[in-house]
This record gives sequence, structure tokens and C-alpha cells, in this order.
Amino acid sequence: MRNIFIKELNQTFIEDLDIEIVERKGIGHPDSISDGIGESVSEALCKMYMDELGGVLHHNTDEVQITAGESHPVFGGGEIIKPIDILLTGRGVSEYEGHKFPLDRVAIEAAKEFLDKTVINLDVNVDTIVQCKIGHGSGDLVDVFSREGAPSSNDTSFGVGYAPFSEVETIVMETEKLLNSKGFKKQHPAVGEDIKVMGLRDGDKITLTIGCAMVSKYLANRDEYITVREGLKDIVIDLALKYTNREVEVFVNTADSDEAKDESGYYLTVTGTSAEMGDDGSVGRGNRANGLITPCRPMSMEATSGKNPINHVGKIYNILSNEIANDVVANVEGIKQINLMILSQIGKPIDQPKAASAGLILEDGYDMEKVTPQVNKIIDDWLENISVITENVVQGKARTF
Amino acid sequence: MRNIFIKELNQTFIEDLDIEIVERKGIGHPDSISDGIGESVSEALCKMYMDELGGVLHHNTDEVQITAGESHPVFGGGEIIKPIDILLTGRGVSEYEGHKFPLDRVAIEAAKEFLDKTVINLDVNVDTIVQCKIGHGSGDLVDVFSREGAPSSNDTSFGVGYAPFSEVETIVMETEKLLNSKGFKKQHPAVGEDIKVMGLRDGDKITLTIGCAMVSKYLANRDEYITVREGLKDIVIDLALKYTNREVEVFVNTADSDEAKDESGYYLTVTGTSAEMGDDGSVGRGNRANGLITPCRPMSMEATSGKNPINHVGKIYNILSNEIANDVVANVEGIKQINLMILSQIGKPIDQPKAASAGLILEDGYDMEKVTPQVNKIIDDWLENISVITENVVQGKARTF
Amino acid sequence: MRNIFIKELNQTFIEDLDIEIVERKGIGHPDSISDGIGESVSEALCKMYMDELGGVLHHNTDEVQITAGESHPVFGGGEIIKPIDILLTGRGVSEYEGHKFPLDRVAIEAAKEFLDKTVINLDVNVDTIVQCKIGHGSGDLVDVFSREGAPSSNDTSFGVGYAPFSEVETIVMETEKLLNSKGFKKQHPAVGEDIKVMGLRDGDKITLTIGCAMVSKYLANRDEYITVREGLKDIVIDLALKYTNREVEVFVNTADSDEAKDESGYYLTVTGTSAEMGDDGSVGRGNRANGLITPCRPMSMEATSGKNPINHVGKIYNILSNEIANDVVANVEGIKQINLMILSQIGKPIDQPKAASAGLILEDGYDMEKVTPQVNKIIDDWLENISVITENVVQGKARTF
Amino acid sequence: MRNIFIKELNQTFIEDLDIEIVERKGIGHPDSISDGIGESVSEALCKMYMDELGGVLHHNTDEVQITAGESHPVFGGGEIIKPIDILLTGRGVSEYEGHKFPLDRVAIEAAKEFLDKTVINLDVNVDTIVQCKIGHGSGDLVDVFSREGAPSSNDTSFGVGYAPFSEVETIVMETEKLLNSKGFKKQHPAVGEDIKVMGLRDGDKITLTIGCAMVSKYLANRDEYITVREGLKDIVIDLALKYTNREVEVFVNTADSDEAKDESGYYLTVTGTSAEMGDDGSVGRGNRANGLITPCRPMSMEATSGKNPINHVGKIYNILSNEIANDVVANVEGIKQINLMILSQIGKPIDQPKAASAGLILEDGYDMEKVTPQVNKIIDDWLENISVITENVVQGKARTF
Repeated sequence: MRNIFIKELNQTFIEDLDIEIVERKGIGHPDSISDGIGESVSEALCKMYMDELGGVLHHNTDEVQITAGESHPVFGGGEIIKPIDILLTGRGVSEYEGHKFPLDRVAIEAAKEFLDKTVINLDVNVDTIVQCKIGHGSGDLVDVFSREGAPSSNDTSFGVGYAPFSEVETIVMETEKLLNSKGFKKQHPAVGEDIKVMGLRDGDKITLTIGCAMVSKYLANRDEYITVREGLKDIVIDLALKYTNREVEVFVNTADSDEAKDESGYYLTVTGTSAEMGDDGSVGRGNRANGLITPCRPMSMEATSGKNPINHVGKIYNILSNEIANDVVANVEGIKQINLMILSQIGKPIDQPKAASAGLILEDGYDMEKVTPQVNKIIDDWLENISVITENVVQGKARTF
Repeated sequence: MRNIFIKELNQTFIEDLDIEIVERKGIGHPDSISDGIGESVSEALCKMYMDELGGVLHHNTDEVQITAGESHPVFGGGEIIKPIDILLTGRGVSEYEGHKFPLDRVAIEAAKEFLDKTVINLDVNVDTIVQCKIGHGSGDLVDVFSREGAPSSNDTSFGVGYAPFSEVETIVMETEKLLNSKGFKKQHPAVGEDIKVMGLRDGDKITLTIGCAMVSKYLANRDEYITVREGLKDIVIDLALKYTNREVEVFVNTADSDEAKDESGYYLTVTGTSAEMGDDGSVGRGNRANGLITPCRPMSMEATSGKNPINHVGKIYNILSNEIANDVVANVEGIKQINLMILSQIGKPIDQPKAASAGLILEDGYDMEKVTPQVNKIIDDWLENISVITENVVQGKARTF
Repeated sequence: MRNIFIKELNQTFIEDLDIEIVERKGIGHPDSISDGIGESVSEALCKMYMDELGGVLHHNTDEVQITAGESHPVFGGGEIIKPIDILLTGRGVSEYEGHKFPLDRVAIEAAKEFLDKTVINLDVNVDTIVQCKIGHGSGDLVDVFSREGAPSSNDTSFGVGYAPFSEVETIVMETEKLLNSKGFKKQHPAVGEDIKVMGLRDGDKITLTIGCAMVSKYLANRDEYITVREGLKDIVIDLALKYTNREVEVFVNTADSDEAKDESGYYLTVTGTSAEMGDDGSVGRGNRANGLITPCRPMSMEATSGKNPINHVGKIYNILSNEIANDVVANVEGIKQINLMILSQIGKPIDQPKAASAGLILEDGYDMEKVTPQVNKIIDDWLENISVITENVVQGKARTF
Repeated sequence: MRNIFIKELNQTFIEDLDIEIVERKGIGHPDSISDGIGESVSEALCKMYMDELGGVLHHNTDEVQITAGESHPVFGGGEIIKPIDILLTGRGVSEYEGHKFPLDRVAIEAAKEFLDKTVINLDVNVDTIVQCKIGHGSGDLVDVFSREGAPSSNDTSFGVGYAPFSEVETIVMETEKLLNSKGFKKQHPAVGEDIKVMGLRDGDKITLTIGCAMVSKYLANRDEYITVREGLKDIVIDLALKYTNREVEVFVNTADSDEAKDESGYYLTVTGTSAEMGDDGSVGRGNRANGLITPCRPMSMEATSGKNPINHVGKIYNILSNEIANDVVANVEGIKQINLMILSQIGKPIDQPKAASAGLILEDGYDMEKVTPQVNKIIDDWLENISVITENVVQGKARTF
């Protein structure tokens, strides 16, 4: 018997709030790059330990500090002046029962691979310097798959999740997804990966404000820049209107000043990320585990990326909460909104939380009595199979930012 | 005319929620130390610029990465093996109209002074290494006090606040405040500054879980450690009962294993912060601008500490929202709870937000019509006098973490 | 009229000394790698400045610190555990009359290219971390080729040279040259670049002691290692006997202990340089400008590598002295040995040294009167054409270590 | 029976050479600071190991990289803009048979203490950043005092020494000694520790060129600067004439341009060392073990500072050679000059060198037959008592730079 609590939410449905704010820092934003590096390093360490030991050793690599470089973007070209500085910290185990692990090298390689595949126009080995100060601790083996029962919580912590996404949330998410998709990049190579999408719904009017680092070498001059920027607006409006009937307005690079005749007036970069010239980044400062920043929703401050996926409940419960919430909305009829919070107890098995509390807003015509057992079953099943979360993370299938 | 919107909140009052979670990372927690350093560096730069120019130059020092050191605490003594590594990043201006500013040195000095006054048993010059990679950008003068009208927003951003604190919030805050007060440290020198307080209210039962780094040299042996730890429970329960009639239970250092006969089983440190031996820290990962982490309340992800206090709306509006909310609750009769969100428009004066939206829960017997003008006036007055926020920050009087 | 002084040397001819010691740190020795990086960075900066300005700006990049990594070499394989840390320091100019130079990036690229072409089995981007702390100073343009007259000395300094090489010197030099030649590496891939050759002549017996890092992946086991090592001895003896009729004995990897059945007893590396696992390196600690360390000969302590080749007399005069000495021996009949020392005067044109002093040992039957004018002319011609040294350095044709 | 060889030198006596060059980099020169730090760290590690184990563990800390800071010296004041960066590298043992040593912290403390006592006007904790990347190797105990017999050589290496100092050598040494003496600093606080003395003897004329960093806060204006600088010349001439009857000329800060009316024309520093603003430094780039750079004398390239004093023959034999040479000159009648070279054999006891070769120049009226046994005895005695060298080093009594 698990501690599962299900209640009706006394709260305005998200779409009925007067004002709603949603933000997503795209995959090339310095904070997201930090998240991605932290998570990639943890994945690589898991793989390294698994290959050698069949289990995972203690580690957390959820601290990455990006210090911006310097660059000199010019229309039709440009160059990096000073590389971006990337510091990996955290902790891992470098020796265990006679096995010696290449912790630092593997971490650095993982970070570089992530950068390489994420920021197309970044020449990783020239434009960045990756340093590793991951502490070499001692630690126990935590065998993920073979041990009976679930691992114990490492801490008193909690995770939160909700579903479904509101219109604005969906639009913000889909906008960044499209603009950073492979196909789009092929057609629009000047659009960099550092894309920040801020969505504001004021009653029935949705305003999207997009900050998008342009890649200088693909824009021969100011006119080409302006053409791409204005084109983005139309593309995003078209996309947004697939998800809403509300009025949508889109702004792109609002800090530009079109009176400028040279590069100074525009959001121009050599690589497609502002980390090249001014914006630092670190893990846990950007998107939550569902990919968004949503001040009108319950949020956890826990940095999900880079934590070990075996017993770090801050990570596991945040991912799990979102999975459960989505599952409930998809499979239980009559659920208009679910908010979920799962609390751990330090030292207890992670499949036995202190509390898993769901708050529901129902569609008209449904009642709690009917949906409660269904919701309860879904939560219970997920907790029963909580190792799926770990497996997904280890295989890089779970979203953490 | 400012864009002020006031509505009744359709939401359960915080004390009526079934479950409430509140956390505070004390001043010696690595994340809080990072916040404090970031903010101290910004304060020092403001002072440096003010002294020389009568105004403040552009800067943001909201990125600090603490990489844990290594230590060897033993009952009655112990020593630092490897210093804590502290990296300052961000941006500032080092040259302006012929003035050359000692940006790096001033930043490092400010960081060390903060550490020195914050963590009593840390010998800053031996136990830490402070490095500075703050970028030297160019920037305009932003004259705080003499210019007419308010500065313009640097970004499209927002701040959130609420009032009053719930019982649990008050207890969590007061607990850390007491345990880290000067008087308490004098009486209980073994209690370090790295104190994490997690408060959970489950119906009418409040559980406080405290993680507290003990200072090894003040504890001659295991028995003394246990005595101090158990004593803490009583002290905290007594304190909590001043603020609530609910049942209170307190746990301290739950990961201890009292079967251990030596140091291994206890939360022992040489300096009073876990940064000495395993826990990294960075800005914006811990407490929000009101000092707490409150997943059941609206929160902003913005790191408030270290941002420039002149035109960084992410910082200013978070501090302002809390000030306004507290002011409203203190001075308008009948307000049970206020949630406030203020949105900026990039490029517009910061005293003219796009929206300042208050949601109210009223006491029985009060109605919106009556309180609305009062609340409106308070919000309007604060916006009119928004430079007070900046002044408070520059003088180190504003809480940011 | 230049200050040229020529005298007969009252000194025993090098081959007649009882004891002679000669050492060469091969191109893969950490000190030589440092030298090579320092010099490559200076070359790259010269090129960068020349391309943009037609002249060279002030810089010195003669400080490189290599901090050893960690590795785990095993017969038939092995891996890097922790990358080698390489710190570039020194000074250069990053802005000049509106031109902005990518100083840091170019320096790092040059360092990496040097590493890549020098240490075959080093995977530069994974096995090393190159950081740049080169100071960004201000500086004047020093136009190498177009200005009339020679640049002025930057310092009161001197250079020394001598010729011809003794037998031992020749053998030490040729041994390393052979073992690090392309053809040899193709045939003997297990022989790394970190080769230290120490030659000792005790009367008519020459002992060569060679320390040679072996590349683990090309040696399947201990027997293969021993075979290669013993083979080296024969190869080196054969080579040495081309240059001497004296008795020659060769030792290779004298610290090996053949009783060891595993890797522990042997000089085994993953990459071919000991920098991967224990030996640090820095500029100016190894070979002098002629490629050798020769305590029985006059030596300068000046680090030749990485200094700017325009007006840094410490560099220019060391290279020049060796060129002149070789030229004299090759073209003046009757010279058994020449020692040369050239002294600068700060602020005076570099082609007008304070003194260029040659000491000669003549073959039997020759007298000073006859050779002096010839030697004088050669010295004078070289000083007249001193810019050739600078050109050679800029084009990477001059030996500096 | 030890391998001691004594021969007459076929060489011109040092004072009879036409030209002689001697240089000393004073204690505040960046290269000397590096040497001093390297040696201080080794001393501190020796002490740490001795206190705990009664013996010394393997270490070498002979790699220190100083990266210059930035400063803004002004007459009567000035400030540091960016601290000096000091990187400690090398290797030591951090764990041995259950003992855990605070290697990094002790090394950093030792470096800071050295800086503090060496450069008076340097505020170590604000003006410098000391980082430690000393590798944590494994290593055997090398018990200095209790073991029977001498330790074994770590390498095939050698040391060189000579005596007595020539006039120029004495003058160069004494000049720096005086100018950096406590009494002198009290009287002349404006004279910094970064003093480079270059002595050139051209026949019977001695020219001393002194580069001396002045401390800005003690010089209210240009006139005071010039007064101090000109005063130095007289002081040094007076000193020099105590040691020679030759003509002496002294130049101080020859790069100054007295037409400059402000700071730009003078060698002005805030702290007394050029490391604050432009000059990097590293171990082994400056003075040899006898304190001088002497291209007209035999020299070893080995960096003596920071090597372990137990079995590192490169260090021990350099110090020993100078001790023996001085002892011979002081105690054997008729010795005009002695050059000494001692060669090790890797793996053999250090008191049994492969060769200790002395070359002598005798006073008129003395013959080799008579002096040889006396010289032999002195060499033999020193080798017999070679542990005295180690003890002196451990106690900080041996000169290494």
C-alpha cells in the first residue's frame, strides 16, 4: 500500500487565468547548454560504470559553469576571439574495488560530444575549453537492474508535475522545437540554436517574444538579416494558430535597432549561441524537467539535469511526476487538469514515497468518485515500475530540461 | 496611469491546503554562499562605480560556481585538505571614459569579505581559492539617482511575490534565522552555518527536517555531537510552537547512524559548510528572493542575486513584488492572502510595467470593491518610488536569497 | 664599424677534455613540448599580425606550463584517465588602431596544431586541455621588413654559440633525430616521441643513456616491449659508430625492472609522452637554441622559444651566434673551434651590438692573423643581414630548442 | 673508494678573460619568486611528512607558473587591477599507509608565506591567486635520517660548481643582497624587491646595469623617483669599489625616459615586483644554485628549486658541488680556481657518484701533486656526509636560486 492521496483542486483552470506566462530557453541557450552537458556527463558515467561493473556508481554532475567567450561577428563572416570556458564540477567515483575509471576524460568527451551535436556552427575544439574539476569521491555500487526492490532515497525531497499543457505552453514548446529542428535548420541556416521563447497570454491575446541568435556567416548583410527575422514572425504565427483560436502576436529580437547600418544593431553571433560573447550559463537556472518555466504552475527548484538517476529523488520524482500527469490525462476520461507532487523519505525505498498527492480539476459531468481509482492505479503502477524512469534516463530518453 | 490589475483569487488559502512544503537553504549552504557572493560582488561594483562616477555602470555578477574542497574533520579538530574553489563570472565594465576600474580585484575582495563574515570557522585565505573570470565588457553609464524618470527595462521579464507567510514558512525562516544568529553561535559554537530546513505540513502536522553541518573542533567526541544534535530538536520545537498550534516534530541530521563509533556516522565539518568536502554550489539554485523555496506558491526562476539593481527587471520586480505584497497585507484590512506578478516590457521605463497583477483572498466580511483602491494605491506608490528598491539593494538592505 | 672582437681561446679543445656531458630532450619531452608550443604560438601571432598589418606587434609567448595528466597504459591498449593541462601565458596585443585580433583563439589553435603534428598518438582534443592566459597588453607596431635600419634592442642581453659539434654532441643530436624521424616511426610505431638522450664521454668511451617512452598499444606484451627496447640499442650503436671511432655503449630505459611480469616494471605510455602521467614541463628548462644541453660549453639561460623575433635580443642573438659559428667553421679554413658571444645594448639597433666576441682554437699550422679578417667578415655580414634571422623564425625555419 | 678525479684546468683564469658577463635576478623577480615558491613548497612538504612519519615521501614541486596581473601605479599611490595568478604543479603523495596528507593546503600556505615575507608591499591575499594542481601520486617512504647508507640516485644526472666568485660575480651578488636587505628597505622603502643586476666586465671596466621596480606609493612625484634612482647609482658604486679596483659604472632603469612628465616614463609598480603587471615567471629560468647566471662558467640547466632533497641528484649535486668548491678554495692553499662536476648513476647510492671531477687552476708556486690529496679528501668527506646537504635543504639553509 502506497501513500497516494487524490483530491479535487480548488483552483482556476489554467486556461481561465487572466494572465499566463510561459518561457522556454532553447537548446542553445547557455543555461540549457549547461543542463545538457550536465545530463550528458551523467549518462556517459552511467554507461562507463555499467559497462565495467553492470551497475552504476554514485555521482552527481549537476554543476556546470559556462563562462562566455568573446567573438567578432560580421555580416557574411566573423570569428571567435576567445573561446567559451566550460567548467565541469560535481562528484563521481574514480576507483572501485580495483577498477580505475577515466572519470575526467569520459566527462570531457561527453561534454564535447553534446556541444558538437547541439550547436551546429560551434567548432567545439577551437571555440570552447572544457575543464573538469569533478571531485573524486568514494562510493558504493548501486546496482540498478539486478537488485531486488528499489534503491533508497538519497534525501528528503520532492518532485512536481502537471498536465496537460495549456495552449501557450504548447505553443512555446512547439515554437522552439520547430526552430531547432533539423529540417528547419537546413532551410534556415542563419537561425542559431540560442532561441528564447517567452509566451504571455493576457486574456485571449497571446504575445510571443522570441530572442534568436542569428549566425553571421549566413547573412551577407543587414537586409538579409531583417528578411530572416521578419520571416520568422510569419512562421511562428502560422505554427501558433494550429494550437489556438486566440489572437497571436509575435516579436523577434526586440532589442534590435533597425536604424543601425552595421552589425551593432542586431543579434548576431558567429556560432548561434550568445555564450560566445557575453552570456554565462549554469545548470538548473533554466527550464524545469518538462522543458518549460511556468510561474503560474507548481514548480520545483531542483536541478534535474546531471543528477544520478538511481537514487536521486529530486531528479527521479520530477521526471516521474510529469510522466504520471501525462499518463493520467491521456488515459482517464474527464480530467481537465492534474497537479502532482511526490515526496520522498530519506532512506526509504524510492517506490514508497511519503506522499504522492494528486489535485484534479474535472470536466463537467465527471465526479471524483469515478476517476479516483483510475488515477490511483496509474500512480501506483508507475511507482511499482519506477526503475523505468532510471532506465529511460540512462538511455538518454528522458527530458530533463 | 499604470497597468495595475486586481482580482479575487480562485484558490485555496495556503493554510487550508492539505500539504505544504517549504524549504530554506541557510546562509552557509553552498548555493546560498554563491548567492551571497554574487550579490556582494554586485554591491561592491556599484559602490566602486558610484564613488568614481556618481552612477553605476552595466554589470551582472549572477554566476558564481563553488567547487567543493576536501577536508578531514575529526572530533576535537580536523583540517582542510584541499581548499574550496570559487569561480566568479558574469560581466562588468573595466574602462569608461578614461577611468580604469579594478574590477577583478574589487570582485575578489568582496567575495572574500562576504565569506569571512558569513562562515565563522572558515579561514578564507587558506580554505578557499577565489578566481575571477568576469568578462570585461563595454557599457553605458546608468545614473541611478540624478536622471529624471526611471531607467528602461533590460528585458521582457517578470517578478512574483506573495504575503503573508504561512505558519510553516514563518517557522522555516525563523528556525534558520535563530540557528544562524550571533547570539546562538556564541552559545552553540558547534552549530555550523550550513543549515538546511525543510518544512512539511501534512494537514495539521508539521515536520521539520534539519540538516546541520557541525563544526568538529567544538565537539570533543561522539557523545558531545549527539548532545548538541538532540538539543537542537528541543530548541527548534520551542521556537516553532511560538508560531503555530499545530503538532510539530523535528528531525536533525537524519542521515546520521549512531551505531558509528567514529566520525564516519555523523555530519561533521571543519568549517561549518559542506562546501569544504563535497557539495558544490551556484547562484540561483536555492532560495527565491523572499528567502524560501515554496513549490506550493508562485515562483520565479530568475536568479535575483548578483543582477545589477538599476535596470534588471528580473531582479527588481522580484524584490518589489515581495515588498508590495507585505505592504498590502500590513496596511489593508481584510486581505488574507495576496499573490502579485509584475511584468516588464523591454525598453519601457521600469516604473511602467506591462502589467502588475494582484490576486487577493479576502477575509470573511470584506469585499473587493472596498479593498481594491487601497491595494491599487500601494502598488502605484511603490512603482512611483521604484528607485527605493535600487537604493536598498545598493546599500545591501534588500534580501535576495 | 661594428664592435667585433676576435681572440685565440686559451682552452682545451672539446674533444680533448677528459669528460664531456651532452643531453638532448627529444621533441616529445614535456619541456620540449612547452618550447615547441611557445614558439608555435609566437609564429602564429606573427603571421596573424603580418596578414593584417604587414608588420608584427609586440608579444612574448615564452611561458607555457604543462601539468601532467593521468593515464593507464596496458600492454596492447590503455587509456588516458585525466587530460594533460596546458597553460599558455605571456603577452600579446589584441587591439591596435581599430583592428581587433583573435589572440587567444589563434594561440590555442597554434598550440593544438603543434601538439597534433608532434606527438602522433596524442588525441589532442581529448587528451589535452589548452588554456590561455596570455595578457592583452598594448604595444607598438614593429614593422619587420619595410623599415630602414634594424629594430632596437629590447633589453641588455646576450647570446652564445659555438661550433663545430663534438662527436658526442653529434651523436646525441642524430640519435634523437633518427628515433623521431617519420620513417623510423613508421617502422617502429612503439617508440614514443618522449626520448631523452644523455651522452657521456669519459676519455675515449662514450656512454649513451636513452630514456624512451614506449606506446602501449603497439606492444602486445612484455616480451614485445623488451624486444623493441633491446633493438633500440643496436640501432643506436650502429648510428653512433658512423660518427666516432671511440667505444660506444648504449643503455635504454635503465629504470626498467625485467623481473616485473606486468606493466609496472616498464616505461610504458598511452601517447608516447610522459606528460600524460607525471612529468610537467615548461619553456626554457630544456635544450638551448642549438638543440642541446652542454654544461661543458658556454650556455645562455635565456629561453629562446616563444620570444618575439623582431627585437628580443635574447632570442635573436642566441640563434645568430650559432648560425655565425657554424658559418665560420664551414667557410674558414683552419678553425678547430669557435665560441661566440654577442652582447646587446638596450635601445641601440640590434645590428650594432655592444660586442661580438669570438674565441678561436686553430688547427695546427694556422695563425690568427690569417683567419681573423675572414671571421670578422662573416660576423659583420651576418649582423648586416640580421633580419634574415627574424625572417627564418617567422617562417618556422630556425631551431630554438 | 669513490670515483674522484682531479686534474689541472687548461683554461684562462676567470679574471683574465677579456669579457665576463654575470647576472642575478633578485628575490622579487618573477622567476626568482617562482624558484622561491617551488623551494618553499618542497620544504613545507618535507616538514609535513617528517612530522607525521619521521621521513620524507616522494615529491617534486619544481614547476610554478606565475602569470602576471595588471596594476595601475601612480605617484603617491596606485592599485592592483587584477591579481597575479600563481599555479603550483609538480607531484606529491597525499595518502600513505592510512595517513592522509593535506598536500594542496600545505603547498598553498607555504607559497603564500613565502610571498608574504619576500615582497613587502604585496598584499598576498588580495594581490595574488594561488592555485594548486600538484599531482597526487603514490610513492615510497624515503627515510632520510635513520636508514643506513645513502639513498639511491633517482636519475642519471649531474651537478656543477666552481669557486671562488670573480669580482664581478661578487659585486653582482652583493649589490642585490644590499638592495634587498632589511636595513636598506627601511631606509629606502621605494626600492622594490624586483631587482635585476647585470654585470659586464670588458677588460678592466665593469658596467652594472640595474633594473629596479620602484614602489609608487613611496614616491610622491617624478622628482622623488629620479632622486631615488640617481641615489641608487652612488650607493652601488660605493659598494662595488669595496670589491674591485677596476673602473665601475652603474646604470639604473635604462628604459626610463625622463622627458615623460607622468608615470608612463618610469619603472613604477604598486608592489615592487613586475609580476603585478606584465612579467610572468617560472622555476628554473633564472639564477643557478649559486645565485647567479654565469655564461662564462660551467652551468647546469637543472632547476634546483622545488626538487626533493632526498634522492634528486640534479638538486643535491648542484648544491654539493658549490659547497665543495667553496670549501676547497677556503681550505686548500694555492687554489686559484676550481671547477667541479659530479655525475650520478641511476640506482646507485648518491654518495657513490659515477664521477666527481675537479679541474684546478693553481696559484704560482703550487703544484698538483701537493694539492690533489687535500682536494680529494675534501670531496670524499663531503660525499661521505652527503646527508648534510639534505638536512640543510630541509631546514631552508641551502641556497637554490
